[in-house]
Amino acid sequence: MSVDDKGKKELPPLKVAIAGLGTVGVGVLRVLTEQADLISERAGRPIQVVAVSARNAQADRGVDLAPFRWFDDATVMAREADADVVVELIGGAEGVARKVCETALDSGRHVVTANKALLAHHVISLAEKAEVAGLGLFYEAAVAGGIPIIKALREGLAANRVRSVKGILNGTCNYILTTMRETGREFSDVLIEAQELGYAEADPSFDIDGVDAAHKIALLASLAFGEQVDFDSIVIQGIRHVTALDITFATELGYRVKLIAHTERFDGCVETRVEPVLVPVSAPLSHVEGVYNAVLVEGDLVGTSLYVGRGAGAGPTASSVVADLIDIARGRFTPVFGVPSGDLSASVLCENSAPDRGERYYVRLMVTDRPGVFADIAAALRDEAVSMESIIQHGRNPGETVALVMVLHDTPEDAVTRAVRRIGSLHEIVEPPRVMRIGRF
Amino acid sequence: MSVDDKGKKELPPLKVAIAGLGTVGVGVLRVLTEQADLISERAGRPIQVVAVSARNAQADRGVDLAPFRWFDDATVMAREADADVVVELIGGAEGVARKVCETALDSGRHVVTANKALLAHHVISLAEKAEVAGLGLFYEAAVAGGIPIIKALREGLAANRVRSVKGILNGTCNYILTTMRETGREFSDVLIEAQELGYAEADPSFDIDGVDAAHKIALLASLAFGEQVDFDSIVIQGIRHVTALDITFATELGYRVKLIAHTERFDGCVETRVEPVLVPVSAPLSHVEGVYNAVLVEGDLVGTSLYVGRGAGAGPTASSVVADLIDIARGRFTPVFGVPSGDLSASVLCENSAPDRGERYYVRLMVTDRPGVFADIAAALRDEAVSMESIIQHGRNPGETVALVMVLHDTPEDAVTRAVRRIGSLHEIVEPPRVMRIGRF
Repeated sequence: MSVDDKGKKELPPLKVAIAGLGTVGVGVLRVLTEQADLISERAGRPIQVVAVSARNAQADRGVDLAPFRWFDDATVMAREADADVVVELIGGAEGVARKVCETALDSGRHVVTANKALLAHHVISLAEKAEVAGLGLFYEAAVAGGIPIIKALREGLAANRVRSVKGILNGTCNYILTTMRETGREFSDVLIEAQELGYAEADPSFDIDGVDAAHKIALLASLAFGEQVDFDSIVIQGIRHVTALDITFATELGYRVKLIAHTERFDGCVETRVEPVLVPVSAPLSHVEGVYNAVLVEGDLVGTSLYVGRGAGAGPTASSVVADLIDIARGRFTPVFGVPSGDLSASVLCENSAPDRGERYYVRLMVTDRPGVFADIAAALRDEAVSMESIIQHGRNPGETVALVMVLHDTPEDAVTRAVRRIGSLHEIVEPPRVMRIGRF
Repeated sequence: MSVDDKGKKELPPLKVAIAGLGTVGVGVLRVLTEQADLISERAGRPIQVVAVSARNAQADRGVDLAPFRWFDDATVMAREADADVVVELIGGAEGVARKVCETALDSGRHVVTANKALLAHHVISLAEKAEVAGLGLFYEAAVAGGIPIIKALREGLAANRVRSVKGILNGTCNYILTTMRETGREFSDVLIEAQELGYAEADPSFDIDGVDAAHKIALLASLAFGEQVDFDSIVIQGIRHVTALDITFATELGYRVKLIAHTERFDGCVETRVEPVLVPVSAPLSHVEGVYNAVLVEGDLVGTSLYVGRGAGAGPTASSVVADLIDIARGRFTPVFGVPSGDLSASVLCENSAPDRGERYYVRLMVTDRPGVFADIAAALRDEAVSMESIIQHGRNPGETVALVMVLHDTPEDAVTRAVRRIGSLHEIVEPPRVMRIGRF
C-alpha cells in the first residue's frame, strides 16, 4: 500500500474571523489569500477567512473585503460569526480587545492574538477560560514578531528547566540605540527621525520607557518558569537617559548598549527587569542591530541558545499569526504556558537584586577637574567595599567639566547604589551619575 | 466552573524503548528519569522508558538499567517491546539503525531519531512508511542538537516560502576554525588537540570534510522547500585546506572563516553546497564560535531569522529527543516535511552555480616576488572580465615567495574559476591558489 492508495479524508476548512484591519490585520489577510495553496498544504486543510471587523468600514486598505462578512462590532463578530478561530489584532490591554478575546472563548472559538499588553495583564484569566472550554489561546505574534520564540519555549525547549531569558524585545529602542552608535547623534534627535520613518509612535513612551519590552518579558517569564509573574513587580528603565557620550565610552570599552529585558530564576525567587545594559561585542547578541529582536534562553540541558529576527512589521507578525492558525488547523494544541494554568505557582520576587552575586557596572561621572576630587571618589568606593576594574578619562581640563568613566566589578547592586549616591553628592560632580549594568552573555 | 472543578482525564503513560546507550542514549534516559515530574507536566502524562537495547549489556553506564526490559537485539526490541515509541540513537546510514527504524514503523510505533546520516539517505522511504501507518517520525536531534530548528522550519515558519537556509552545522569544524583564529595555529595541530579533547573523532573525515554538514543541510533543504534534495548532488568542500594564513588575512579584511552549509532556491532550481566561507564580522553569524551551531533562515514573510545553540553533546541532544517525545505525548503531529511526502517534488539542481549572480571571492596566491608578475595576474583577470575590489600584499621579498590576497567582486563563479586556473598556471605562482566565497549575510 502506498500513500497514494490511501483514501485521503478531506478535512473541512478552518474558518477564521479577523478583528482589526491595521497593517498586521491586512498582512494576515493577504498571506491567507495569496499563499492559500502553500498554507493549506502545510495546514492539512484550507484556512478560510469568513468574517472581518474594524473601526472604519470605508477605509481603503488595498484588499478586497467583499468575500468576508463585515461586522462593525468586533465583539459581536466574536460571538456570532461562523468561525472556528478569532484573530485579535486590535491591541490594548483593556476595552474592545479584551472583550473580543473573552467573548470568543466564551463562544467556543479558539483565539489567536498579537496583543502583548492584554496578555501581560490578563493572560491567566484568559488561559483559564481557554482550558475550561478546551480551546486554544495562541500568541506567537505577541513577542518578537518574526521569531517563533513562544513555540521554542513552550515546545522546542520543553524538556529544559529554564534558568534565564534575556532579550532585545523592542525594535524601536534597538533602532534608536543602533543609530545613535552609528551616527554619534543624541537620543532626542534620533527619536524624531525614527518617528518620521514610522519606527516610533507619535507618543513613543510605551516603547522608549521600556513598558512594551516589560509586557513581553512578563509573558516569556511565565512561560519559561511556569510561574505567574506580576507585571507590576518588574523594574523598568527605558533608554531616554542614554547619551551619545555613554555609547562612545561603551564602544571604547568593547561594548554595545542594548535595552535588555531580563528574567532569571534563582533559588526560590525570580528577578525580572528591563534596562539599558552594556553587551560585550564578542557576544552575538551585541550584533543584533536596528529593528531586529533577539531572545537568549539558558536551559539546563541546552545551555545557551539564541533566537534572532525582525520584531515587528506586517510580514513577520503575519508569519506568526498564520503559524498559529496552522497549528490549530493541524490540531497541535499546547496549554497556554506549556503546563495547565492551574499548575502555575505565584512567582516569588527576589527581595534584593542579586544580593549575593557580584556584577559589573559602568558608571559615568561629569566631574569638575580639580585636584583631590578623585581621592574623594576613591574613598567612597573603598568605604562601600566596591572594586574598580578600570577607569577612563580623556585629557585634562582644569577647572572645567570632564567625563570620568569607571568599570566596577564583583559588586552587589546595593553597594554600587550607596557608593554612587555618595559620589553624586560630592560638590565636584555636576550631573547625576549614570549607571548601567554590564551584562554577562 | 473553574479549571479545578473539571475532572481531569488521566492519560496513560507514553511508553518508550531506547535503542543505543551511548552518551546521548544515557543522556535521554537520565533526563526522563531525573526530570520526570517536569516532563510529565509538560507532556500532559508520564513518559516512561520500558525497554533498552545496546551492544554491550555489561558496560557500566552510571545508570540503573534494571527497571527496563533489556534486548540484545535492537530490531527485536523495535518489533516486540511494549512501547509506543522507539528512540533510535545507534547512528549510521545503513545496518542496524535503518532496520530498527523500519521495523518500529512497520510494527506501529512512532520513531524518534537523531540519525542525520540515515535520514539524509532514506528519509523519503521512512516518511512514506510513517504516513501510511499514521505514525510520527521525529528528528529534531538530527540537526543542530540544542536548536529546535526542525520545529521552527516545520511549524514556526510554516507560513513562509523559504528562500534560503545557511548554517554552521558542524561543531567540530567550528571549534577547529575558532581555535585556529584565536591561537594562530595550523589546522593539523588544532585537529589533534580537538581529538584529544573529544571534540573530533579518531577518524575525523566525516566532520572535517563536510559530509556531516551536508547530511544536515540536505534534510533542512527538503524541509524548507518541500522538495527531495538528492544528497549526492551536494557540492561538498571541507576545512582541511584552510590555513592559518588565510584566517589571518580574513581577519584583516573584516571576516571570519566558517564552514557554511548553504541551500538556496532560485527560479526553478535549488543550489546546495558545503564550503568554507568568509563571513563579515558585522553579521551575528560570524560570532557563533567554538562548538556552537547556527542556522540562518530567509523567508518571504519573516525576512532573515537566526537560531544559535550548541550542536551536540548529551544535554542538547537529549533536549531535542525529549521535546519530540513530549510532542508525541501531547498528540502534536506534523508530516515529516511539514507537507505529505507524496507532495514533495524532486529538486532541480541549478546547472551552474549562481550563473547570473555576481558574488565576491577571496583569492590567496603564493607568488615569487619578481617584476612583472602582477601584470600577468591582472591580465588574466581582465581577460575573464573579473573585477578586483582590493588587494593585500605585506612587504616585499624580491625573488622569494610572498602571499598576495585579492578580493574579487561582482563575479560569476565560472569566470573566477577560469581566471584562477589561468593565474595558477603562471610560473611565479608556487602553490595552488586558494579560493573562498565571501558570504552575504
